[in-house]
Amino acid sequence: MSEPATTVRVNLAERGYDIHIGQGLLAGAASFITDRRKAKHVVLITDDNVDGLHADRVADQLVEAGLEVNVMTVDAGEASKDVDVAAELWETMLQEGTDRQSVVLAVGGGVVGDLAGWVAASYARGLTFFQAPTTLLSQVDSSVGGKVGVNLPGAKNMVGAFWQPHGVVIDIDVLSTLTDRDYRAGLAEVVKYGVIMDADFFAMLEANADAINNRDPQTLIQIIARSCQLKAEVVEADEREESGRRAILNYGHTFGHALEAATGYGPLLHGEGVSIGMVCASRLAESMGLIDSGTTSRQVALLEKLGLPTSLPAGQDPAELVSLMWRDKKVQDGKIRFVLPTRIGEVQLFDSPAQQAVVESMR
Amino acid sequence: MSEPATTVRVNLAERGYDIHIGQGLLAGAASFITDRRKAKHVVLITDDNVDGLHADRVADQLVEAGLEVNVMTVDAGEASKDVDVAAELWETMLQEGTDRQSVVLAVGGGVVGDLAGWVAASYARGLTFFQAPTTLLSQVDSSVGGKVGVNLPGAKNMVGAFWQPHGVVIDIDVLSTLTDRDYRAGLAEVVKYGVIMDADFFAMLEANADAINNRDPQTLIQIIARSCQLKAEVVEADEREESGRRAILNYGHTFGHALEAATGYGPLLHGEGVSIGMVCASRLAESMGLIDSGTTSRQVALLEKLGLPTSLPAGQDPAELVSLMWRDKKVQDGKIRFVLPTRIGEVQLFDSPAQQAVVESMR
Ligand SMILES: NC(=O)c1ccc[n+]([C@@H]2O[C@H](COP(=O)([O-])OP(=O)(O)OC[C@H]3O[C@@H](n4cnc5c(N)ncnc54)[C@H](O)[C@@H]3O)[C@@H](O)[C@H]2O)c1
Ligand SMILES: NC(=O)c1ccc[n+]([C@@H]2O[C@H](COP(=O)([O-])OP(=O)(O)OC[C@H]3O[C@@H](n4cnc5c(N)ncnc54)[C@H](O)[C@@H]3O)[C@@H](O)[C@H]2O)c1
Ligand SMILES: [Zn+2]
Ligand SMILES: [Zn+2]
Repeated sequence: MSEPATTVRVNLAERGYDIHIGQGLLAGAASFITDRRKAKHVVLITDDNVDGLHADRVADQLVEAGLEVNVMTVDAGEASKDVDVAAELWETMLQEGTDRQSVVLAVGGGVVGDLAGWVAASYARGLTFFQAPTTLLSQVDSSVGGKVGVNLPGAKNMVGAFWQPHGVVIDIDVLSTLTDRDYRAGLAEVVKYGVIMDADFFAMLEANADAINNRDPQTLIQIIARSCQLKAEVVEADEREESGRRAILNYGHTFGHALEAATGYGPLLHGEGVSIGMVCASRLAESMGLIDSGTTSRQVALLEKLGLPTSLPAGQDPAELVSLMWRDKKVQDGKIRFVLPTRIGEVQLFDSPAQQAVVESMR
Repeated sequence: MSEPATTVRVNLAERGYDIHIGQGLLAGAASFITDRRKAKHVVLITDDNVDGLHADRVADQLVEAGLEVNVMTVDAGEASKDVDVAAELWETMLQEGTDRQSVVLAVGGGVVGDLAGWVAASYARGLTFFQAPTTLLSQVDSSVGGKVGVNLPGAKNMVGAFWQPHGVVIDIDVLSTLTDRDYRAGLAEVVKYGVIMDADFFAMLEANADAINNRDPQTLIQIIARSCQLKAEVVEADEREESGRRAILNYGHTFGHALEAATGYGPLLHGEGVSIGMVCASRLAESMGLIDSGTTSRQVALLEKLGLPTSLPAGQDPAELVSLMWRDKKVQDGKIRFVLPTRIGEVQLFDSPAQQAVVESMR
């Protein structure tokens, strides 16, 4: 028995698209694509974990549906979000006769989605792009919003584009093979949406923490759909990160990024950094009198229930982290913008709180 | 005494921009930029020919105006329109602290413009971009329309984007240092605009061939402005090459590209290939009964007056060129679309004329 599927529409004028969320949806990937685009040739990009687990089935099914398919597999892991890996993909695509009528399909986590999206955005000045995200993080976050790209040495996502997919198909069944840690890392972004935009959703997460931990299908569809919807609302209001609205998605991320950088990208998953970062941001908001301590402790309690870390890893020095933050390239005129909660369900942007307060928030 | 400058507006909704055309305009590049964008940091990209001739003056002037400037110089020539060269530029830009507030300024020909535009489009998901084209070809063609990108081995412009500049400043004085051949190559595209869109303009070129050959400033401003205007009209109607309208700009190019490829990109400049290609296309139109021979001979006469080649280079075999055309990646289902004149000032698209007729048109 499958839970009923659901659709979230991302409204972006002529670039609007559907996100289908349900069980077993990958079995219908071929018609999902051909319903939306007369395609004959699909470049399927995946990584070497997801290939054997899920992508090969998708490829078989596309072939059965009469499509010409080239599967291109990159190494699993962040190191594949790389300029040279993209260049290899472009060349392989050229050799395989990829042209403007070809479509690119990403089957994998955020790494595959960001890389494949970038390759799609730039080959022949832009190919039609579909996403089948396979990690919770990519299902609730990276597959929505059109940010694609690769890293430069020392600078994440420094080369890329805004390139909206033509459609996103989220099959929650693929989550069954995901490690516990990767699953929980995705949950951090889910909690984030509750804090920044939707108190009811936050309360729903509190009430259903057990079902979430058990990866209950109905609950999964519900929280993924709501997360996509909330992110879509922000993206619709600020597609190209111009008005500032999109910045609210960075709640917890200023701290999180500093932690990821300080620990050398690896020991701490992105979602884990965000989890700790949200707690720090909330404490900072407390110290500024924006919220009371109960608002922070609700977040800590929920994150802990979901198995996420809420305090700095051993050996991390708050003062050093703060100087890392202020050295970041994005800092303009010495000002950092923090996203801080004013209650559960609402955040605001604050420019440059006192560095000492930021240090304190991490203790 | 300077001739009065003129402005062509490219109307593309929120991406519209001005093209300033006149004498000595590079001396005002700093205010041209800062009038349009609050900028502090300029990444100036040029090549090693243009650097000493013109770009260093521009850089000095930007510095005098209080801007922070990094000059990045690539080797002159098509080989710099390359994935690895772009990657080096991205890394250098990162090291120099380039951020979203930085702007990129291209000072050079089409190679520099396409490369710098691509780097601008992709760094930090898109920086503001200005062009100061310094060849006639880039002034009348490549700097208008937003196509930017680099080559893959064996495939020109295969990686790129549509990325409109924020403004284009065309200083005709820089043309004084351009070789005769490069100057004439640019004229081929000017003649093209007359044939495809504007009989009066074509007649004006016929009447002013001597002034054009003498690079008379007033005439230059006039023909560059009209060329930009005509290209802008096409681009406004079909910004992303979707409706087919933009295809008319390829008049002479199907033949021209085959010639460039057959001669190994080098012996024949792009504009020279286009010049020969227009004559072939016009003969093909004749053989199909679209035009009389007088329409072709007017083009031949004008092109010859402007010092451009109008027949195949020695040793080129029409039959081989035709098979080259049909092997091109862009050919779909064995069909090639030719842009053919129906009179001076008008072209139409024709799918796949008989291959034998195409062969004959090149004899
Ligand atoms: N574009 C955006 O807006 C955006 C937003 C957030 C994050 N991101 C990016 O997303 C990336 C992180 O995404 P991620 O966490 O999905 O990382 P990931 O793609 O590296 O996936 C994590 C691991 O899970 C494996 N995996 C994927 N699906 C699986 C499955 N169904 N079963 C078993 N294993 C599976 C992968 O092979 C990988 O080893 C980062 O590069 C980050 O910058 C982008
Ligand atoms: N983006 C587009 O829409 C578009 C349209 C047409 C052509 N193009 C591209 O443009 C490129 C060709 O442009 P191009 O002909 O300007 O080539 P180019 O940039 O290589 O310039 C030709 C030569 O002239 C030199 N030069 C430039 N300005 C000079 C000056 N003022 N004085 C003396 N020397 C000077 C250059 O160093 C180079 O050696 C090709 O790569 C082609 O694909 C792009
Ligand atoms: Zn995140
Ligand atoms: Zn051309």
